[in-house]
Amino acid sequence: MSNPTLRIGLAGLGRLGRRYAENLARTVPRASLDAVCSPVDEEVAWARDTLGVSRHYSDYRAMLADPALDAVFLVTPTSLHAEQIEQALDAGKHVFCEKPLSLDLATCLHTVEHAKRYPQLRAMVGFVRHFDASYRDAKARIEAGGIGRPFMVYSQTADKLDPTGAFVKFAPTSGGLFLDCSVHDIDLARWLLGRPAVKRVYAIGTAAMYPELEPIGDIDNGAAVCEFVDGSMAMFYASRTQAHGHDTHTDIIGTAGKLSVGRNPRADRVEIADAYGVRSLSVPSFFERFEEAFQAQCVHFIDAVLDNKPFDLTLEDAAEATRIAVALRESRQSGKPIDL
Amino acid sequence: MSNPTLRIGLAGLGRLGRRYAENLARTVPRASLDAVCSPVDEEVAWARDTLGVSRHYSDYRAMLADPALDAVFLVTPTSLHAEQIEQALDAGKHVFCEKPLSLDLATCLHTVEHAKRYPQLRAMVGFVRHFDASYRDAKARIEAGGIGRPFMVYSQTADKLDPTGAFVKFAPTSGGLFLDCSVHDIDLARWLLGRPAVKRVYAIGTAAMYPELEPIGDIDNGAAVCEFVDGSMAMFYASRTQAHGHDTHTDIIGTAGKLSVGRNPRADRVEIADAYGVRSLSVPSFFERFEEAFQAQCVHFIDAVLDNKPFDLTLEDAAEATRIAVALRESRQSGKPIDL
Amino acid sequence: MSNPTLRIGLAGLGRLGRRYAENLARTVPRASLDAVCSPVDEEVAWARDTLGVSRHYSDYRAMLADPALDAVFLVTPTSLHAEQIEQALDAGKHVFCEKPLSLDLATCLHTVEHAKRYPQLRAMVGFVRHFDASYRDAKARIEAGGIGRPFMVYSQTADKLDPTGAFVKFAPTSGGLFLDCSVHDIDLARWLLGRPAVKRVYAIGTAAMYPELEPIGDIDNGAAVCEFVDGSMAMFYASRTQAHGHDTHTDIIGTAGKLSVGRNPRADRVEIADAYGVRSLSVPSFFERFEEAFQAQCVHFIDAVLDNKPFDLTLEDAAEATRIAVALRESRQSGKPIDL
Amino acid sequence: MSNPTLRIGLAGLGRLGRRYAENLARTVPRASLDAVCSPVDEEVAWARDTLGVSRHYSDYRAMLADPALDAVFLVTPTSLHAEQIEQALDAGKHVFCEKPLSLDLATCLHTVEHAKRYPQLRAMVGFVRHFDASYRDAKARIEAGGIGRPFMVYSQTADKLDPTGAFVKFAPTSGGLFLDCSVHDIDLARWLLGRPAVKRVYAIGTAAMYPELEPIGDIDNGAAVCEFVDGSMAMFYASRTQAHGHDTHTDIIGTAGKLSVGRNPRADRVEIADAYGVRSLSVPSFFERFEEAFQAQCVHFIDAVLDNKPFDLTLEDAAEATRIAVALRESRQSGKPIDL
Repeated sequence: MSNPTLRIGLAGLGRLGRRYAENLARTVPRASLDAVCSPVDEEVAWARDTLGVSRHYSDYRAMLADPALDAVFLVTPTSLHAEQIEQALDAGKHVFCEKPLSLDLATCLHTVEHAKRYPQLRAMVGFVRHFDASYRDAKARIEAGGIGRPFMVYSQTADKLDPTGAFVKFAPTSGGLFLDCSVHDIDLARWLLGRPAVKRVYAIGTAAMYPELEPIGDIDNGAAVCEFVDGSMAMFYASRTQAHGHDTHTDIIGTAGKLSVGRNPRADRVEIADAYGVRSLSVPSFFERFEEAFQAQCVHFIDAVLDNKPFDLTLEDAAEATRIAVALRESRQSGKPIDL
Repeated sequence: MSNPTLRIGLAGLGRLGRRYAENLARTVPRASLDAVCSPVDEEVAWARDTLGVSRHYSDYRAMLADPALDAVFLVTPTSLHAEQIEQALDAGKHVFCEKPLSLDLATCLHTVEHAKRYPQLRAMVGFVRHFDASYRDAKARIEAGGIGRPFMVYSQTADKLDPTGAFVKFAPTSGGLFLDCSVHDIDLARWLLGRPAVKRVYAIGTAAMYPELEPIGDIDNGAAVCEFVDGSMAMFYASRTQAHGHDTHTDIIGTAGKLSVGRNPRADRVEIADAYGVRSLSVPSFFERFEEAFQAQCVHFIDAVLDNKPFDLTLEDAAEATRIAVALRESRQSGKPIDL
Repeated sequence: MSNPTLRIGLAGLGRLGRRYAENLARTVPRASLDAVCSPVDEEVAWARDTLGVSRHYSDYRAMLADPALDAVFLVTPTSLHAEQIEQALDAGKHVFCEKPLSLDLATCLHTVEHAKRYPQLRAMVGFVRHFDASYRDAKARIEAGGIGRPFMVYSQTADKLDPTGAFVKFAPTSGGLFLDCSVHDIDLARWLLGRPAVKRVYAIGTAAMYPELEPIGDIDNGAAVCEFVDGSMAMFYASRTQAHGHDTHTDIIGTAGKLSVGRNPRADRVEIADAYGVRSLSVPSFFERFEEAFQAQCVHFIDAVLDNKPFDLTLEDAAEATRIAVALRESRQSGKPIDL
Repeated sequence: MSNPTLRIGLAGLGRLGRRYAENLARTVPRASLDAVCSPVDEEVAWARDTLGVSRHYSDYRAMLADPALDAVFLVTPTSLHAEQIEQALDAGKHVFCEKPLSLDLATCLHTVEHAKRYPQLRAMVGFVRHFDASYRDAKARIEAGGIGRPFMVYSQTADKLDPTGAFVKFAPTSGGLFLDCSVHDIDLARWLLGRPAVKRVYAIGTAAMYPELEPIGDIDNGAAVCEFVDGSMAMFYASRTQAHGHDTHTDIIGTAGKLSVGRNPRADRVEIADAYGVRSLSVPSFFERFEEAFQAQCVHFIDAVLDNKPFDLTLEDAAEATRIAVALRESRQSGKPIDL
């Protein structure tokens, strides 16, 4: 074991990037966060002062030139992901990238092809739900035959309503509701159903609370159905407007049973009985819901690279999720089913 | 109050018909089950011996000629419903009919028109879920503004798997999965959303466990999305193959909250903690789930007739549910969305 | 079947008495509510006008003299129960009496002895929870061996806080918290554990919100433990001060599992997800919780009498529940365990 | 920040000790696991090879002489705790010790007094539930007034049945059921109720499944009630024989509401619907239930020592929990209430 730790440079220190940095610096075994990259001085200073990261870059290419890094983590804006992955591979680094690979299918496929040139390097796009203990439990039960043959998935990603509507500013570059939210559910459905080939999708939607989304062709609530060539099916629901909290859940139905993951998005194990009834509070956002999964995802990446084990997720999976999400958007906008 | 009870003749004494007969004979206030009609001698004998019903008919027209009956209840085969409703009205009787009105839209509309000739007579097709205490509670909360403006419904009707496959025999005359099962969810969605006009539907499906349904163009699991002209939406799921029990549930999402009705189809208030985990058993069929609602439905009909109050459900509602269900079937078979 | 219905006279038309009257008059098969007895004219008028009861008495002895009655139902003040049962038996009537038999143990035992003189007549004190579908389900599972040998019961009766404190007025004649509330839990524990002989009890309590109970030696929250001679145990909790609703629930633990009955006192199958979390509302009082059980209890009594089947509950059970509840009160007041 | 990490020596590398070692070595910020102590060579070798711990001791006093250690963690047999704490303090080390302080009250009090000699050193006995996110949430809600004035606690510690009965071997040195299990519930009740003085306790119990406990005066199921001088109350239940899993839960009732912590001991967010009903699996043992709390407990200790903040728990709390648990045992054995 000549290289017992993975020497990591992280690019992107926004809200989610800082979480990654904390995990890599503090709690993930065999990870060494040796460098960070951000154009924002305060962010770099935070990593230095809070986490003790010693090498700092404002330029991504400069960090890639650092010979004492084995891998890079990308928590940068989506529009940069594909090119930065390719650059990291060209620089001889393993690369982990936050989802999505790209909002553009051709770009996704370009990166998939590019990565094939470097069989000795590993690249993964993070769909964090794969690493959530409950989703993993569900997947293991399915593989053990616990629900017979799975043939139907219902999955939703539903954010808590933000009365300030701050997300609207972000909407134009998000790819729209299906690319931003449903891409997780698409990926889950494919994973849980055994990656069947998709046949046809159809989607609908509405701007129920944010009419300002309409001029940019986006919606705040959407629903879709998806057929796979093996006869299995999926239903997706995505929303920006839940009153109670971040409500991500998934049902998987098989010939011998059903699994529901996260049906009640309870924040913890406390139940309150008072004038409002018997109740549990909900997680406010995906951060709280998937806090441990983000950590487990880092562990998975680092273990797979150091121990040369397969990833749970390939770049092809990331490209396929984008392909289907783009089709949902197109279906919703055209009112027609899309054959894939 | 010269006529404090409604004198009733009931046609159809199959499994569900007997339940109606018991309710009308024993527990529904102001109902008097004075006559029954069935071509099966044993069924008539059962009503006489068990319930003490005194007048018996093997011919429906003969029962309609009985001048001492105010109303008829129809729990006959679906194919007879529309004509028998019209005949009852022609005979001067109020009429309650089990759902559906008809599997054929033109027939539905014919009966709707026919009924307009008899403004003094009352006719209702029973969609029993309207009379379930929990659905009524949900409806009342919506009307009180409890979830703001409702804009999204998810509703499913999912039967417990019958390993004998007995229902397959019944499938050819059922109208198919959407007409047999989803018609309830369609009706609920319209009711809970305030009866918006439907715009377009799209449906998919599979014969996951009963391939013998394929030759007759039917499925055992189906999913659909539905757009309404006011921008609200619905998702439907129907199944014949649930491992755990009869699982009918409905979510209604509004701008200020969500209501879920029957999410856990628990049989009663008992929770078991043993080697299988912490668990509740599920209701085996719609009979157990809606036992009290069937009774409440009779009470509603009889109260509305005797006290001249409006029905919760009109014949137009029944026709519209059929119209949408037929469109779902057509969409699934053609692979195309159907504009309505 | 020369006597297919039981001809009933009901004494007591207070809040609970009217419910009994409605059940007997309208929904209980083979019951005929032929007479009522109340010193309050308006109550008698209500029974006549609303339920069509034809014979009316202001004097209990006069009703007992009515030769056309087979049985009486007593929903009168607790202090009258024992004597009225004895008088009914003396008059040759079967008798059903709301719980408790008496707050005084000697009186209970006197009635038990008195009843033995009339082996042809049936007498039962109603502990309504025996007839609740969920408790019956639990009992049936236990008898089928579903939890192995049961050896531990936790049971609570906890009323919703009444901010008006109206119940305080009633407290002095209630026998106190344990005799009024825990008597149900005592009876359940004995029933579910197979009626073992009780060995010793110990109880504590506090007047947490109604200090005006202290001068009369009563409490608004109490807890107790109970040992049986076979080694099995029970814990009881009683309260007048729950914020969320009427919370009656029972756990039964056996060597192979645990059953919980009514742990979440949900009012119906509706779940609300809104700014207060994911929640269900609770039943406000025992009326709503046990509405159907009150009906089933009448059915049980009438079926047992007409078909000569055993009661689920004997007068001895009622006396034993009083004996134990009196011991709890004594233990709480003395601070000492009571051997029984 | 001249000493940004706490240099730790850990004594005891049994099952739980190894968990502590992993947490301190890998995931707890500002902790440096520099030494381990165990008489078992394999355990020391594991710490060296797996965690890279560089200094190893087979003798506790030798480790205490190590000048480069700031603190010791004790995960040793209970009988050693008190003396080892005193020795650590004498050696100038801060000390964290797994619960309990001692099974003997006099020993507890001796250590409490001893510690007062070293005001500059910190000592804490770990009651891990204080550091569970859900218990902390409950405590915060209580302090914020969410349930009004709390006056009643029900708390249970119930282990999953071990069909091998392995724990029986351990029973003679465990102090018995109340000292081993209920001590947690006692501590929780005191904490959640604001540490009122205890007035009187009473306990009962049975050897329901392990009769071999009887000769050693122990039980496998026990129940107790506890009165505090301010009128508040507690009920405790402890068990070694749950069929479904490790079932630790706590209710706290106040004048304006109730909090339940961990009522359903669900293992994760997966719900299974199959032939056994709708169900969740339970955590198998306290390890899985409190895995994160063990980590948070280490963080709490290290932060409090390094930043000179108060502990959530004092040695006096640990002594008081033992005092009450001893009284429960005495009450159960004598059949008499114990005044404290």
